[in-house]
Amino acid sequence: MNQKINKKEDWIYEYHQGVRYGLEGKLILEEFSPFQKITIYESKRYGRALLLDDCWMTAEKHEKSYHECLIHPALCSSKTLDKILIIGGGDGGSARECLKYKEVKSLDLIEIDEKVVELSKRYLPIIGGNAWSDARLRLEIKNGIDWVKNTKTNFYDVIIIDGADPVGPSEKLYSNSFLKECKRILKPGGVFATQSESPESFKNIHINIIKQLREIFDYADPIYGSVSIYPSGLWSWTFASMEKPIYKYPSKIRVKEISENCQVWSKRWQEGAFNTIPVSIERELEKND
Amino acid sequence: MNQKINKKEDWIYEYHQGVRYGLEGKLILEEFSPFQKITIYESKRYGRALLLDDCWMTAEKHEKSYHECLIHPALCSSKTLDKILIIGGGDGGSARECLKYKEVKSLDLIEIDEKVVELSKRYLPIIGGNAWSDARLRLEIKNGIDWVKNTKTNFYDVIIIDGADPVGPSEKLYSNSFLKECKRILKPGGVFATQSESPESFKNIHINIIKQLREIFDYADPIYGSVSIYPSGLWSWTFASMEKPIYKYPSKIRVKEISENCQVWSKRWQEGAFNTIPVSIERELEKND
Repeated sequence: MNQKINKKEDWIYEYHQGVRYGLEGKLILEEFSPFQKITIYESKRYGRALLLDDCWMTAEKHEKSYHECLIHPALCSSKTLDKILIIGGGDGGSARECLKYKEVKSLDLIEIDEKVVELSKRYLPIIGGNAWSDARLRLEIKNGIDWVKNTKTNFYDVIIIDGADPVGPSEKLYSNSFLKECKRILKPGGVFATQSESPESFKNIHINIIKQLREIFDYADPIYGSVSIYPSGLWSWTFASMEKPIYKYPSKIRVKEISENCQVWSKRWQEGAFNTIPVSIERELEKND
Repeated sequence: MNQKINKKEDWIYEYHQGVRYGLEGKLILEEFSPFQKITIYESKRYGRALLLDDCWMTAEKHEKSYHECLIHPALCSSKTLDKILIIGGGDGGSARECLKYKEVKSLDLIEIDEKVVELSKRYLPIIGGNAWSDARLRLEIKNGIDWVKNTKTNFYDVIIIDGADPVGPSEKLYSNSFLKECKRILKPGGVFATQSESPESFKNIHINIIKQLREIFDYADPIYGSVSIYPSGLWSWTFASMEKPIYKYPSKIRVKEISENCQVWSKRWQEGAFNTIPVSIERELEKND
């Protein structure tokens, strides 16, 4: 990945495999944390945006197309919602969506990079919204791998992995040993959710995440949606559970509570998104199943 | 829309609403027809590509994500497939997908711009494939509006509108009077299909197309998919029919015949794609229904 900031033109581009996706706007700041380069940018099209290591991560007027799809299939379907864990998600968007559920008693947000949280709170406050001041939120600046390792068995009702691409600080969030630990700390009747990359731009990574989760949990299925600022725009999130694919059966009461304020997600959208698997990906998944 | 060809860097970008989408590669040629600017480009990521008036239209290694979605919901479900009409589609991709159906007896391809056909045949022969030499194909370089006006009532089994954005030569393909004429020449039990823009980048146009079709035909519904090279990457196609939403019920025999060689489309994908309507768009459509 490389980046050019053409100060005259005021564009930032993300480069990926012969494709450039750029937004017009103004650079606000660029900082280096111990983990990554962090850029805050004011884009004309999608408002304030965050880049990590020169990759678009989120933007104020765009983030719902990512956060709603990661959170609601999991939280609408988990048997109980007492204790939620988010690994990553330092911009606060996933936490905000989780805390819309009154049933949630506590939410542990484990972000490795303090700078991401600090800059998101300061420059993208709309993304975290009320989450940052919600008494149910416990923010810990820690390594998510260690956190999971040190958690009791059957502890969380829902586990959300909201990491960047599996290179750099997020790589280990897709390792077999980490995912097995996630299964261990997930309550029976709970749901595990992770972003699972683009079947177009990260085809092999995408397929491997699903296969891994299917081996570790009893059930795992991807949904497909659109995140325009990510490579190819076609994105996926994968959900996993034990005993039955509980993530396919959202609770009517929760759906009613949540969907009114959504931009993309609805019960209908979700049912569709579990089926819009490109047939070429379906074939690859069937190969070794 | 503007375009910069930076000869040093070998990139072409499409600009749309503060967003630039660029592909790395080499310019092959640029010509002006009486209707539009036509560009042929060799991209690293998606192979040979076609731009019209500086907008990405199609690319060899990418075009299935558009053509399969436009064609198969219509051709798998129409009661009969004797006579097919395509308006636009000068690259040949839609014709190629239609001619995969043995039941098709004749296919009229009505393209206004001879140059698009000529350059597609020469530079993008893989997109038209066998269609160009298929005896069932009748290519006419004519204005589609006039062609439809001069066609007998209840004449075609399927009508496909494969036009560019509703500006420039394609604008009238989205007019009420043209769509009413399409209904007149469509057989009962037939299906009408059109690309219907992005609900993200062309929200109002998208909503208006669906509303218009719902007023003119008895039934009209959009499907949603991913076309990475188009603005926002989130794209839609809308299908319309009389008496019942026949496009939702693909024939098992045809599905079997076709889906084996598809990259994106399958019966399952299609069922999903009729439901992945972003909830904000669903709300807008319900407003005046």
